[in-house]
Amino acid sequence: MGWLADETGLEKCAANYVPLTPLSHLNRALEVFPDRTALVYGSTRRTYVEFHARVSQLASALQARGIQSGDVVASILPNTGPQVEAHFGVPACGAILNAINTRLDVDTVSYIFEHSGAKMVLVDTQFLKLAEAAIKQMHGTPPQIIEVADPEHGFQPGGHYLEYEELVAMGDPMFDWVMPQDEWESIALNYTSGTTGKPKGVVYHHRGAYLATMGNAISWRMQLYPVLLTIVPLFHCNSWTHPWLMPMMGGTTVCCRDVTAKAIYDAIADHGVTHFGGAPIVLNTIINCKEADRRPFDHIVEVFTAGAPPPASTLAAIEPLGFNVTQVYGLTEVYGPATECTWKPEWDGITGDERADLKARTGVLMPMMEQITVHDHGQEVARDGQHLGEIVIRGNATMKGYFKNPEATREAFKDGWFHSGDIAFMHPDGYIKITDRAKDIIISGGENVSSVEVEGVIAAHPAVLLASVVAKPDEKWGEVPCAFIELKEGASVTEEEIVKFCRERLAGFKTPKRVVFADLPKTSTGKIQKFELRAVAKLLD
Amino acid sequence: MGWLADETGLEKCAANYVPLTPLSHLNRALEVFPDRTALVYGSTRRTYVEFHARVSQLASALQARGIQSGDVVASILPNTGPQVEAHFGVPACGAILNAINTRLDVDTVSYIFEHSGAKMVLVDTQFLKLAEAAIKQMHGTPPQIIEVADPEHGFQPGGHYLEYEELVAMGDPMFDWVMPQDEWESIALNYTSGTTGKPKGVVYHHRGAYLATMGNAISWRMQLYPVLLTIVPLFHCNSWTHPWLMPMMGGTTVCCRDVTAKAIYDAIADHGVTHFGGAPIVLNTIINCKEADRRPFDHIVEVFTAGAPPPASTLAAIEPLGFNVTQVYGLTEVYGPATECTWKPEWDGITGDERADLKARTGVLMPMMEQITVHDHGQEVARDGQHLGEIVIRGNATMKGYFKNPEATREAFKDGWFHSGDIAFMHPDGYIKITDRAKDIIISGGENVSSVEVEGVIAAHPAVLLASVVAKPDEKWGEVPCAFIELKEGASVTEEEIVKFCRERLAGFKTPKRVVFADLPKTSTGKIQKFELRAVAKLLD
Repeated sequence: MGWLADETGLEKCAANYVPLTPLSHLNRALEVFPDRTALVYGSTRRTYVEFHARVSQLASALQARGIQSGDVVASILPNTGPQVEAHFGVPACGAILNAINTRLDVDTVSYIFEHSGAKMVLVDTQFLKLAEAAIKQMHGTPPQIIEVADPEHGFQPGGHYLEYEELVAMGDPMFDWVMPQDEWESIALNYTSGTTGKPKGVVYHHRGAYLATMGNAISWRMQLYPVLLTIVPLFHCNSWTHPWLMPMMGGTTVCCRDVTAKAIYDAIADHGVTHFGGAPIVLNTIINCKEADRRPFDHIVEVFTAGAPPPASTLAAIEPLGFNVTQVYGLTEVYGPATECTWKPEWDGITGDERADLKARTGVLMPMMEQITVHDHGQEVARDGQHLGEIVIRGNATMKGYFKNPEATREAFKDGWFHSGDIAFMHPDGYIKITDRAKDIIISGGENVSSVEVEGVIAAHPAVLLASVVAKPDEKWGEVPCAFIELKEGASVTEEEIVKFCRERLAGFKTPKRVVFADLPKTSTGKIQKFELRAVAKLLD
Repeated sequence: MGWLADETGLEKCAANYVPLTPLSHLNRALEVFPDRTALVYGSTRRTYVEFHARVSQLASALQARGIQSGDVVASILPNTGPQVEAHFGVPACGAILNAINTRLDVDTVSYIFEHSGAKMVLVDTQFLKLAEAAIKQMHGTPPQIIEVADPEHGFQPGGHYLEYEELVAMGDPMFDWVMPQDEWESIALNYTSGTTGKPKGVVYHHRGAYLATMGNAISWRMQLYPVLLTIVPLFHCNSWTHPWLMPMMGGTTVCCRDVTAKAIYDAIADHGVTHFGGAPIVLNTIINCKEADRRPFDHIVEVFTAGAPPPASTLAAIEPLGFNVTQVYGLTEVYGPATECTWKPEWDGITGDERADLKARTGVLMPMMEQITVHDHGQEVARDGQHLGEIVIRGNATMKGYFKNPEATREAFKDGWFHSGDIAFMHPDGYIKITDRAKDIIISGGENVSSVEVEGVIAAHPAVLLASVVAKPDEKWGEVPCAFIELKEGASVTEEEIVKFCRERLAGFKTPKRVVFADLPKTSTGKIQKFELRAVAKLLD
């Protein structure tokens, strides 16, 4: 403890201590980058002067409508301009943003409204019915609806609610923001998409959000003036904190309402997108893009991918198209990415499958975090590329906890670590490689089978678009791998061919015993819903 | 204030809160960059595994020799390997590093020993006499001397003191570091070189040091694996916090004991130096380097320069040599750089003097700081490129205060701002341009004359190496500008020619009334000692 013998007069004061918050980035951008483009959405383009004024107006109007410090303001918005504005405007009046997944069902939205106690909700016209239905069946005081119309994209205001632009117009562009007095105050409340049970409300503090922006900028090798395409939904870990990061770099946030291959190529060619994050499914979308929708560009686009390890075949296919893919790993509880598969210069000469295998590593700790390791019964596993354990994490970009759920918080933080529930091993050089969610491991004849490993093999088959492998109960082996496969348009392959393809590449106990061709069910954030597949697998003879 | 209605279970814990400290960067580097080169000094080259072990040994040995948390450990060291190790090893045992300027006189070092209460001092063999003399004349308990020999550079151990390598050898490479419990604890104590009065002890906290590393990395557009040449002395704002930054990026710190043009070129060519900071005088050293000492390299070296605005002629001369110079501005009190002349892409096409003028701006706020402005009587000056005021700063990389000097701290922090004492105006786009230290302004016939402006004009004369302009008392005008000039080797010019050169480029009242050719006196950190020149100017007829 480095306290000096005499600390007289060395306490914190306004000159040397400011609570960390990403709001500071936008205040600084107003001074440093006033005329640079902050936001692009459709035909809307705002400089930092304009964006700052819009945010101030929103914050001011929210306050005028009764929103107080510590209140929750929800949103049900696609990645539109207003959603980005809300990421600054809501905290700028001292409130906490609860960005709700637009793909959720009425029951869950209703549960979130009740649980969060949101006083207000900004709802895109497209999702008004969802919000109305959720309010109808909820108990307690419902949130006040503000309708966010999007006429340019075909969503005209319905006229039943105060519209977002009317709200903003009421606000004062010179409004004095309500800055946090303590960096441990909350900035966001993000409900996990939880495949089982009620979603949990993950609380973000201003400090963590600020530090995540710095760590992400450094890890992502961002130079000044990046252009971010928001493919990761802003309701998903606040798009990994990246919209809060952009003002720090004088960067531009480009929004697109619907993520299509054409929209991605257009954003790159028209707005010079330099960075985006996205699940591996987005990489597939780009790889399988129609030739007519592709646009030429002459820079390398940096892509963070996460959610599941991208198959080697995907990685190998996308690089020649001008995308440098870096795998990151994280969870809602750690503000999105916490590790990155940091590339080593000595790997530069490695090509083909070996290169793709390296790129598919989960990686190492990002700069804003303190420690990550893989624990088995509280001890780090051997760094031998084999022993499995649970990924545990410590650091400043970790949630405050789960809202109104101290038991779950205690459980998640037991022994001073955040317990991810993800299963991994460690390479000898310390790089972590995730193998499965704990519940996704298949135990066949006492052997652990990583469903991700089997999926990676199947995905390399030329006819396969997506593959998901789950446990199927088996009298003899306990469990056996069962594969569900979505084929590429026009492609065909038989169950026997897939099994043979796998057997040539995998140990016998890892080879799927059943193969089913079907459209795969996905959660609202694009993850494949394995619990549904497991239910189906159980019913197969 | 964003406190939620229910904060139960959302308090800080070991999983989600770690006091910010640059020590974390080195712990992370051990995991993420174990085999990369951390340090190069002479023939010494250490990986992060080795460097971390050395730091642990040093911390352990310091503790074994009686150093406790909160104690001050001083150093009188050039930019050598041990000085970099001390920057981590001293705080890793909970102590505070007081890196003392090796160019100070005995009186001042003696004063610092007394004032800091240092328990131990690491002294390079070259400076043993200085330390001994300072101890001899001081009152109170003297620091224990550890001699740091440097046989490779001709400094053999004298045998009178415990030698640094012996000390390190006593330590445990697996020592469990004493990490700060509170990020407001102190990490360093840096005495200002104060041209008048006793030096003041600037106290750095771990939080500010950590945030400065992140802000500097982002501002300096660093990518992974930078190679830093430590030209700025580590006793000068801890080399602007850059050695603490390197482990965050997997970077290499290259030390050189003596800064010569040859040493700089060799470090670039042999070790691939990508970044260094230095005063404008270092730029001149490079520009005027003998052809035989130049080495070819094929990358652009990024240079932060500070201490005084580099003359347009210097900037124009160094760019074609492969150096991209960015001006930064700061003070010991703000951990070195706080502003940067952030380059705008729309300036790319601008060449010649206009480009150099842009590059000579003091700039805008760096990302880790909160606010900077120019105040005249507590109000921001008009952004008109004319009105002068004092630069004031707020933010998290600002000192805790002056050690054992609460009055000076209060004065420096009055009204919630750090008062820099530097005079500047603001351009319409918000860029600040420093004109002078408050005391360096020349007031001639009621008009303010910026000594820096006049110096810039004189420096553009082909015969001039360095110029310094100060006030000379004058019966008629109150003060008039008086120029002191150091000529390039072999060059010659007359007083009349300089006056004529200035009159063609400056208003009459700004033109020097006297010109003196002489070697300019410099402070220990390379700044020209204007107070001496003022004394001389007074004596001139």
